[in-house]
Amino acid sequence: MAAAFTFEPTAEGRARLGRLTTAHGPIDTPQFMPVGTQATVKALTPGDLHAAGAQMILGNTYHLNLRPTAERIARLGGLHRFMGWDGPILTDSGGFQVFSLAHLRSVDDDGVAFTSHLDGSTHRLTPERAMEIQALLGSDVAMAFDQLVDPGQPRTEVADAMERTHRWARRSLGARSGDQAVFGIVQGGVDAELRRESVAAIAALPFDGIAVGGLSVGESKAEMASTLEVVADALGDDPRPRYLMGVGSPVDFFTAVERGIDLFDCVLPTRVARTGQVWTDAGRLNLRNAAFLDDPAPIDSACACEACRGFSRAYVAHLFRARELLAYRLATLHNVTWTLELMRRLRASLAGGAFSGLRASVEGAFARPRAPEA
Amino acid sequence: MAAAFTFEPTAEGRARLGRLTTAHGPIDTPQFMPVGTQATVKALTPGDLHAAGAQMILGNTYHLNLRPTAERIARLGGLHRFMGWDGPILTDSGGFQVFSLAHLRSVDDDGVAFTSHLDGSTHRLTPERAMEIQALLGSDVAMAFDQLVDPGQPRTEVADAMERTHRWARRSLGARSGDQAVFGIVQGGVDAELRRESVAAIAALPFDGIAVGGLSVGESKAEMASTLEVVADALGDDPRPRYLMGVGSPVDFFTAVERGIDLFDCVLPTRVARTGQVWTDAGRLNLRNAAFLDDPAPIDSACACEACRGFSRAYVAHLFRARELLAYRLATLHNVTWTLELMRRLRASLAGGAFSGLRASVEGAFARPRAPEA
Repeated sequence: MAAAFTFEPTAEGRARLGRLTTAHGPIDTPQFMPVGTQATVKALTPGDLHAAGAQMILGNTYHLNLRPTAERIARLGGLHRFMGWDGPILTDSGGFQVFSLAHLRSVDDDGVAFTSHLDGSTHRLTPERAMEIQALLGSDVAMAFDQLVDPGQPRTEVADAMERTHRWARRSLGARSGDQAVFGIVQGGVDAELRRESVAAIAALPFDGIAVGGLSVGESKAEMASTLEVVADALGDDPRPRYLMGVGSPVDFFTAVERGIDLFDCVLPTRVARTGQVWTDAGRLNLRNAAFLDDPAPIDSACACEACRGFSRAYVAHLFRARELLAYRLATLHNVTWTLELMRRLRASLAGGAFSGLRASVEGAFARPRAPEA
Repeated sequence: MAAAFTFEPTAEGRARLGRLTTAHGPIDTPQFMPVGTQATVKALTPGDLHAAGAQMILGNTYHLNLRPTAERIARLGGLHRFMGWDGPILTDSGGFQVFSLAHLRSVDDDGVAFTSHLDGSTHRLTPERAMEIQALLGSDVAMAFDQLVDPGQPRTEVADAMERTHRWARRSLGARSGDQAVFGIVQGGVDAELRRESVAAIAALPFDGIAVGGLSVGESKAEMASTLEVVADALGDDPRPRYLMGVGSPVDFFTAVERGIDLFDCVLPTRVARTGQVWTDAGRLNLRNAAFLDDPAPIDSACACEACRGFSRAYVAHLFRARELLAYRLATLHNVTWTLELMRRLRASLAGGAFSGLRASVEGAFARPRAPEA
């Protein structure tokens, strides 16, 4: 097996502490993967990511295959070498992007035909091609190709997409490259029965890990929690790592970890950073707020990132107003560092019995309604 | 005196090797100052600037006083602390920006009234206010307030602006802050007689350094060289540091150093970097050229910057096509590093008698017509 996973249960519900081992190094779980859509976590270098504590990052099959193309990256030595990141990489399969670009694609049982958002050229993704692209990229963990639908669609459409996802899961495994781990994806919207059926189908296959797809796409927090509960019940004591796709908000981490989730990815911390929203132990701060223009304190005095060690809120707030490139870099570096540090504290709290206290503190800071100015 | 300068002549024309000492550290001359217009050298941190070998940087009175304002920077501890740069800083006086924004201003003998390019608000710069702003910023070297005109204007206009510059020079000195060095600015367009008159007026005043303004604004290379020759002749053995404002192209450094110039600043290396143009020992490369998309070599294999140590031309070319923020950062870091390393090599060549060889090599790489694709 290309990736080995060991974990131990904790005293907190289904939460577990684990370690995923890959050829490019280990990942302590629960863990968050910063997203490097176009072979870069926006504004950061691999050195920044190491300094921020990143262990594993995510790359996007859809984007990388359109530009610079998987074949070009393979000629240049693979994605690790291309982007200069020597740690583990997980690649998605393109399913989510195809879902997001609904008006540009058509789906049949063979795969998806779509129009490039870059130049209007036509392309095709199938389970076999998605696996081939990921093999060319050389990621440590490849994702099976899946079909995602809006969970608010009629049940028959959700069920159809789920069943297609199961057929594509088998084809993805059949096309796997020998040295990559492959994770299967559970679909089924927010329907408990479909989710149980999907877990049964996916967990029966020899995947190296199980991902939960189709969440964080517009459903309520309660629906996300109850769906994760159903999936956790259905997985039982399945020993493989569990990855909740597309989730990256501080409160959601706790909801999911309690339900047995080990891995997360999301563009949220990096995307909001570029708008001036930074995450701290006191919650969200919007650096575009005029009050910060005179604030000599660092973004978060408890944070050890380069932005907090070297600069004031006043300075970063000025950079945002002046639309300076350094604004996006410093805010991104801070949010990635803070998020990865939160995961480290979350793991420590699971080991030390302080999970509830940490969750209450993060919920207090992040779940409260935002002040009009903040 | 707030800044001390010592130099020794070399075997190369009027070229000299010197050291300018400030409260924030020494500057080896000839030296280039990267430009931090809005309290940041675009895309870079102070740590990047130190790693690139920067000794002194430039800040802009006009921009900083409009946003975030000099008073705010002073309340936050001054420009060094605000931007996190602990090395020497030179601030310009705003004269050049007022010249660039010709349609937004009116000049009289007291000073300049202008409309902010940011919000249309009205402002006033006078010699006294320009010096006050620079004292609030707390730069190591302040520049006298001058009036710059297009050297192609009628001679009476160039002469009028020069004479006003001389009156403003005296007022600038009268408004100086005790702990700042102040450099005067020689004007006079490309008219030899006016330049001689301006040197006589400015060099007679107790400035800590002499700047040459009004060049690199559209005149020919031959006009720049002959004007520098006139200024050098007129300055004779004046022992103060000489600063050529707004010049930063590789070939121009040699032209100016041979004519006794010690200091340079320019946005050129950072501005062109953000368009994909990088400077190397082989000349300019345009990373938007399709050929680089498959080039596994670093930007410049002889360069030790983070961009050249960690990434291929193919990767940076991809980042430019994808409009990724990291593109601007890596190309800027490279150009600043390469330019400062060129100045280091230039100083070494003056010490070691290899100046002509280095000049020929840089002229060969940079003065040739650009290939259509490069």
